[in-house]
Amino acid sequence: MTALWGGIEAGGTKFVCAVGTGPDDIRAEVRIPTTTPEATVGQALAFFQAQTRERGPLAAIGIASFGPVDLHPDSPTYGFITSTPKPGWRNADVAGPFRRALNVPVGFDTDVNGAALGENRWGAARGLDTFVYLTIGTGIGGGGLINGRLMRGLLHPEMGHFRLPHDLQADPFPGGCPFHGDCFEGLASGPALEKRWGQRAETLPAEHPAWALEAHYIALALMNYICTLSPQRLIVGGGVMAQRHLFPLVRSEVVRLLNGYIQSPAILEHIDAYIVPPGLGDRAGVLGALALAREAR
Amino acid sequence: MTALWGGIEAGGTKFVCAVGTGPDDIRAEVRIPTTTPEATVGQALAFFQAQTRERGPLAAIGIASFGPVDLHPDSPTYGFITSTPKPGWRNADVAGPFRRALNVPVGFDTDVNGAALGENRWGAARGLDTFVYLTIGTGIGGGGLINGRLMRGLLHPEMGHFRLPHDLQADPFPGGCPFHGDCFEGLASGPALEKRWGQRAETLPAEHPAWALEAHYIALALMNYICTLSPQRLIVGGGVMAQRHLFPLVRSEVVRLLNGYIQSPAILEHIDAYIVPPGLGDRAGVLGALALAREAR
Ligand SMILES: Nc1ncnc2c1ncn2[C@@H]1O[C@H](COP(=O)(O)OP(=O)(O)O)[C@@H](O)[C@H]1O
Ligand SMILES: Nc1ncnc2c1ncn2[C@@H]1O[C@H](COP(=O)(O)OP(=O)(O)O)[C@@H](O)[C@H]1O
Ligand SMILES: [Zn+2]
Ligand SMILES: [Zn+2]
Repeated sequence: MTALWGGIEAGGTKFVCAVGTGPDDIRAEVRIPTTTPEATVGQALAFFQAQTRERGPLAAIGIASFGPVDLHPDSPTYGFITSTPKPGWRNADVAGPFRRALNVPVGFDTDVNGAALGENRWGAARGLDTFVYLTIGTGIGGGGLINGRLMRGLLHPEMGHFRLPHDLQADPFPGGCPFHGDCFEGLASGPALEKRWGQRAETLPAEHPAWALEAHYIALALMNYICTLSPQRLIVGGGVMAQRHLFPLVRSEVVRLLNGYIQSPAILEHIDAYIVPPGLGDRAGVLGALALAREAR
Repeated sequence: MTALWGGIEAGGTKFVCAVGTGPDDIRAEVRIPTTTPEATVGQALAFFQAQTRERGPLAAIGIASFGPVDLHPDSPTYGFITSTPKPGWRNADVAGPFRRALNVPVGFDTDVNGAALGENRWGAARGLDTFVYLTIGTGIGGGGLINGRLMRGLLHPEMGHFRLPHDLQADPFPGGCPFHGDCFEGLASGPALEKRWGQRAETLPAEHPAWALEAHYIALALMNYICTLSPQRLIVGGGVMAQRHLFPLVRSEVVRLLNGYIQSPAILEHIDAYIVPPGLGDRAGVLGALALAREAR
């Protein structure tokens, strides 16, 4: 009998819960709209309890959560969502209820660290020990592995919120981040595109000047990650990157900006394999949660 | 009998070689001007051979080197300085001669990773597993530990070369980096200060407007490292930071720029202990090399 794991992609709009062992073996899956913590966590718990009755105990649960989250195992609020502006979710205990009710190990991390781990096990980051997973959607977030271990540190990275060069002559949009104005997220998230151009990002045609500007900002951010972290690869997903024509634009802009400074064939010769979409596509989230379960002790 | 280690701070202007066990126990030390690889490495080797005859075999050698360097143990150029513009040093084997002539393990890393390891063992990063060590001098470089292990990745970080917001109205200096113009190093290194203001940085008085601008650029860079890496502390050294009045300016500017986004007491309440000078001062380099020796296998 193979052990089964449970995974929860805990997002701001929905919780996706799955039971299985990997991408080719999902035994059951359910989507639960994110309402209050009690209702949402309660429904997710009911799903796993039903699964346990049917299939026997799960080996562990993995939770890849929206944040900010507390990742310090010795903190009293470990496994909580902490200072989110999302109504009702401030200081919500997400990991605790599962650990107590199911009595199994629970792996807990950010959504992007979860996705990074999933990409490492089954997707575009197989065999790598140092890489970034970035998502560009409603917000911009990033995680990854460094020397084979998930990024943590003081809290966890907030890869959308540093400042980029912003030429107000070329792009008078002041940026939409309530904290920083024209940080990376403020300039390049889906909602930033919508505010700047007055229409939803998915309705902007491929030849619209929005995309060259977007590629420029994304490339500046990737240059920053490259210089700061020296990743072996950059995986870029999220709703905005559904515009696949962004990839060649971003790649050539990164090469132009770095201007030969990083003397690595990965960048100078194989940029197509260096900046890539997620291998697991939009399954990176829930499969990442399953990967977190497999590492839970 | 206590084991003795050898450390080499391999810099672009001098090699500092020491034998000992730590900051309070340096048995011998020598400074060798950096000329050709053959002469410089030859003199360093002669020093360690004489030490070995006098004191018995060393347990290991650590080398903290200027770069770029090859850190991949399975690469044919492991332990080499690679694509440096420094005459004569392109593709120079630095680690090999010591390993072959002294027949001991050789630890090899960047100068800043060495300094980071020294700070971790004896200085301002004791007890931390994720922090950045940054030096602002002739160039700007950074390294550090993530999850307790030295940063490596594709090559190694090049923390001076990402792009910052640069208001050409407030600061018309175009930047001095030959690769990127106004990257962080191009705007904020010692030579950038000298070019912008027409006098050496050490001669600019504390009330000169140079320092508020310098603090602003440094703070933007630290904000970037904070968002990208989530370090538990930032150690900032190098010649320019001898201007100790920069520290309070940088700290308050970081807090202002982050604008409450990172909800950690380390930043919101204890910024004085979060952004700090090296605990080992200008001994971080050679002691870091000794720390690399202690980890060499
Ligand atoms: N095909 C598309 N092209 C461009 N932008 C898109 C596309 N699909 C979604 N988006 C944008 O991405 C954002 C949603 O991001 P997504 O990653 O799907 O969800 P979330 O970030 O909320 O998890 C919205 O701002 C939306 O306008
Ligand atoms: N006390 C000081 N105040 C300001 N700048 C300084 C000071 N001392 C050195 N510098 C500047 O720092 C640079 C040298 O950096 P340093 O860290 O000493 O050496 P290196 O980076 O070459 O190892 C020079 O540009 C110099 O002008
Ligand atoms: Zn922001
Ligand atoms: Zn540069």
